[in-house]
Amino acid sequence: MTDIDVPQVADPEVAAMVRAEVEGRWPLGVSGLDEVVRYGLVPFGKMMGPWLLIRSSLAVGGDLATALPAAVALECVQVGAMMHDDIIDSDTQRRGKPAAHSVFGRQSAIVGGDGLFFHGFAALSECRQAGAPADRVAQALAILSRAGLRIGDAAIREIRMSREICPVPSYLDMIADKSGALLWMACGVGGALGGADDTALQALSRYSDQLGIAYQIRDDLMPYDGTRAGKPNISDVRNGRPTLPVLLAHARAPRAEQQHIERLLADTAAPAAERYAAMSDLVHAHDGVQAAREVSHRHVQQATAALETLPPGPHRDALEDLTVPGRLV
Amino acid sequence: MTDIDVPQVADPEVAAMVRAEVEGRWPLGVSGLDEVVRYGLVPFGKMMGPWLLIRSSLAVGGDLATALPAAVALECVQVGAMMHDDIIDSDTQRRGKPAAHSVFGRQSAIVGGDGLFFHGFAALSECRQAGAPADRVAQALAILSRAGLRIGDAAIREIRMSREICPVPSYLDMIADKSGALLWMACGVGGALGGADDTALQALSRYSDQLGIAYQIRDDLMPYDGTRAGKPNISDVRNGRPTLPVLLAHARAPRAEQQHIERLLADTAAPAAERYAAMSDLVHAHDGVQAAREVSHRHVQQATAALETLPPGPHRDALEDLTVPGRLV
Repeated sequence: MTDIDVPQVADPEVAAMVRAEVEGRWPLGVSGLDEVVRYGLVPFGKMMGPWLLIRSSLAVGGDLATALPAAVALECVQVGAMMHDDIIDSDTQRRGKPAAHSVFGRQSAIVGGDGLFFHGFAALSECRQAGAPADRVAQALAILSRAGLRIGDAAIREIRMSREICPVPSYLDMIADKSGALLWMACGVGGALGGADDTALQALSRYSDQLGIAYQIRDDLMPYDGTRAGKPNISDVRNGRPTLPVLLAHARAPRAEQQHIERLLADTAAPAAERYAAMSDLVHAHDGVQAAREVSHRHVQQATAALETLPPGPHRDALEDLTVPGRLV
Repeated sequence: MTDIDVPQVADPEVAAMVRAEVEGRWPLGVSGLDEVVRYGLVPFGKMMGPWLLIRSSLAVGGDLATALPAAVALECVQVGAMMHDDIIDSDTQRRGKPAAHSVFGRQSAIVGGDGLFFHGFAALSECRQAGAPADRVAQALAILSRAGLRIGDAAIREIRMSREICPVPSYLDMIADKSGALLWMACGVGGALGGADDTALQALSRYSDQLGIAYQIRDDLMPYDGTRAGKPNISDVRNGRPTLPVLLAHARAPRAEQQHIERLLADTAAPAAERYAAMSDLVHAHDGVQAAREVSHRHVQQATAALETLPPGPHRDALEDLTVPGRLV
């Protein structure tokens, strides 16, 4: 799981409030489990999840104070998932510093991720005291936990998909659960706490799923389109994970080069930098980048369309703003 | 974390209902994340956690149908914690078969444990549809998540306590959080769903904490007092984890034998079977078993006393029955 950190959409006011909440709950110098928890949370990401949660809540008539503990909950759950993902992917860097398992050891990082999940659910329960009706808290609980299950199921499928080519529809289904459910976790919990009716929740569900797919494709493209300055993240190639540009290049390539792509995915023992360079050549030679951009574009259009049934206003506009090219996708 | 599996207290009716719920939710042949989840849940343990939850709920006036999804939730959360513990402790057997990480790999077992946690919270949310007032679900959510945090904090402390002697009070504090919170998770969630008032919740809190400490001491004693037939579980010695009989023997031993105990804990590279044999001799030579039994006895008495403020009746009697020597402790 990648941190959702898109500078263009950072909302200084929302981010500052969530940061203050986190700093108040886990101040510098906390010990035991909370030391590992704080290490994961601070320095902060761009607070995209909390931002989506709060905007979704306000878009359906909710208020900020009620949603704030849930915004902290969301950050906890997402950081917990990243802490476990870094162990699973053997990624040693996160948010510009060593990953938690590199600092505290694998054992403590497993427990630390678990702790972030339980802190997330504990923070969600605090929405009751912050003014949310109990029924909305129970609904938000169902949404948060079921979204987590979709993400977990996608993680299992992703682990099993590694080292070989898979059909593009299976891949798109997997990332709808991996990244779509990640955004739905934010939009759905915010919507439920804000009192969304079924129509509004369905709109938020379609919006977040489609935007999540597009977001994941943006992430898939990063190693190949030069959008991120500096060293490309070659974690997917290193772990033999197929991504959309690779799958689409494979679909377009003649058989000999298809077999080359298949070998690059399968042979995870070979040096990752060399495999990445060869894969990058093949992706570009067979239009994998452009083809993936076109798929992304279709999903962004569906995300935009989904918002039409939400009540118009500045918060819906803010959600729609993420679909503008150059923003989240 | 050990499975709470005490044959004497198995309640065939409660266990059968929870098993039927689990089998219905995760039938034979489920795939993806749920395949790993089912592997952890089945074959069943003795359902001590679900049993405590349901008895606690009934003891304060709750009903069975409302508590049943929470009983499944509890089993999920506890099995998830065990799945992660087995990775942390490098334990390769669980419930008489290979541990999940031995079968599915470490990566999938991390995700599988996470999935069990999220299934647990999802099942808790279903108590609302099963008839629980939303406020009680929100309260149960707070109790379940905060108990999980106590267990996680204890796990971090336990990891850091390994390979050396620690003060007995620190150890008892740690096991109150490790095993006391494990039972509180059951009793507190059941109590909250059953509509317990503050007095009843406090009684259940004291009961579960004290009984949990005693339960953990029983577990600590197993490798040294021959209560479990067959091969003793030497996981603690293998991982250099101090337990109460070891700490109390150390406190009573002359300096030379104290140093021997310290070396046995620290030198985790030496063969575990030899270290266990030497540790067992030292524990017996300095009355570690008897001294630990006396500590356990005091905590059992406090557990019994805590129940006095609960409404009298068959369910309180059933909870008290666990404190009878030869039952849970």
